[in-house]
Amino acid sequence: MGLLDDTKIGFIGLGLMGRPMARNLKRAGATMIVHNRSQAPMDELAAEGMDTASTPAEAANPAEIIITMLTDTPAVQAVFAGANGILDGIRPGDLVIDMSTTKAPVTRELAARLVALGANFIDAPVSGGTIGAEQGSLIIMAGGDEAAIKRAMPIFDVLGSRTTHVGNVGAGQVAKAANQVIVGLTIGAVAEALALARRAGVDPGKVRDALAGGFADSRILEVHGLRMVENKFTPGARATVQRKDMNQALELAAELGIELPATALGRDLYDKLIDAGHGELDHAALIKVIDPD
Amino acid sequence: MGLLDDTKIGFIGLGLMGRPMARNLKRAGATMIVHNRSQAPMDELAAEGMDTASTPAEAANPAEIIITMLTDTPAVQAVFAGANGILDGIRPGDLVIDMSTTKAPVTRELAARLVALGANFIDAPVSGGTIGAEQGSLIIMAGGDEAAIKRAMPIFDVLGSRTTHVGNVGAGQVAKAANQVIVGLTIGAVAEALALARRAGVDPGKVRDALAGGFADSRILEVHGLRMVENKFTPGARATVQRKDMNQALELAAELGIELPATALGRDLYDKLIDAGHGELDHAALIKVIDPD
Repeated sequence: MGLLDDTKIGFIGLGLMGRPMARNLKRAGATMIVHNRSQAPMDELAAEGMDTASTPAEAANPAEIIITMLTDTPAVQAVFAGANGILDGIRPGDLVIDMSTTKAPVTRELAARLVALGANFIDAPVSGGTIGAEQGSLIIMAGGDEAAIKRAMPIFDVLGSRTTHVGNVGAGQVAKAANQVIVGLTIGAVAEALALARRAGVDPGKVRDALAGGFADSRILEVHGLRMVENKFTPGARATVQRKDMNQALELAAELGIELPATALGRDLYDKLIDAGHGELDHAALIKVIDPD
Repeated sequence: MGLLDDTKIGFIGLGLMGRPMARNLKRAGATMIVHNRSQAPMDELAAEGMDTASTPAEAANPAEIIITMLTDTPAVQAVFAGANGILDGIRPGDLVIDMSTTKAPVTRELAARLVALGANFIDAPVSGGTIGAEQGSLIIMAGGDEAAIKRAMPIFDVLGSRTTHVGNVGAGQVAKAANQVIVGLTIGAVAEALALARRAGVDPGKVRDALAGGFADSRILEVHGLRMVENKFTPGARATVQRKDMNQALELAAELGIELPATALGRDLYDKLIDAGHGELDHAALIKVIDPD
């Protein structure tokens, strides 16, 4: 009855994002074989009726589609190319979808190795956070060939509310880098604006209300602006992750020979936030760097 | 029949924003007495049935409500306090509404002088550009006392789609400064993101599509992002105006003793754009500073 009734999916990376994504795929009918570095999340999903695998290779081998949702590029490299990695378990005809935020050059290298083994690859990083993962309303930025994207669409339809086929392999990661540049810098913009209002004796909440619907309006003003107004920084996305993503964007820019001065400054501001001991707070806590009171 | 049938309005400043605003007020039934430094816009509106005045004082004197929509703070000072200025024509009980983007300290000083003459004052700068002015869909950020705001609401309802009473006199200008900080920096964020994509060989239009609906989404991505993708920089709002507004925000910050590092960098980037001869282009042309090709 489900959209994915005949699909066997190996899912690797059961963090805050991965767990609800795996659940949504199972709910849509997929047979799930899950793997995670630590055991607890596997036990949790095993109790919900999913098969578990003790290595990435064992999750990949019986599946026709393998999805990774990992913390960072070193984790992606280990899971793909480490001992008992995906590359050891892959079979010709398999499709691998990396939904982590991974450096574009690494993405392209792993894709080439999979293609050499007769498999296919899509990079499909997401925006929308844990709420989007739970609600199946992620925004998906996909890079890969037309046939692979078409094959993955039923999965993307379960996980997200909108998928854009941005270009060839790596293009999804470039779009995600662009996304994170905008998110990080817009948070900085809202932080300076609301800090200015507060220092001028004007209620930042009223200013946020006033700006809604005008040219200054954004999802960040709405969501992260509210966190600043309420001084509540339970993550959402951690400042450390935001800095990592901005560093990845800056590395990509350096490889391409383009300077991104605002992104570089924004990264420095996140450095200050993290150096002040706030790395585990939501990235909206950046306002603490501008107005420490 | 109109909302403003019994209202006599002196309207000063008939630029790209002021003319459509005056027309909307007349359409709502107000009796309009208009003034502008140069003659042509006055002739245009006289042909449409509005009265004209040869000085700000003459526009203010017969009116009960006086609205100003001027280019910058020096123009506001001249129109209010110069020879034959509003202060020379004002009568007790009048209400003056400055909808220009004016420095908050100047706003507060002019308000005090009007109050000393028995009049009242609201600062009510707007966001939404010429399109918002034409459609009567401006976002209005109002500072002033409760009674004055209440009296002005029928006018705001004609000119805008939403008015927020942000605080006392000057609070509207603080909100507008916050607005312009966010607008200027979000344009910079979108510019760096789309320039990065283009240099990485990924279609910036596809990236803009991919990001819509996610955390990176904003009015700026939608409107100014499209201008960048299409490389069309007919203003909207000129880069010179954006720089002026960011300088005003930085001056306010300096008075308050708060540093706004991203705003300072953003202003420097607009300086570069203007130094390169692009000051009359739309502020979205900032992408030319990041990726000059």
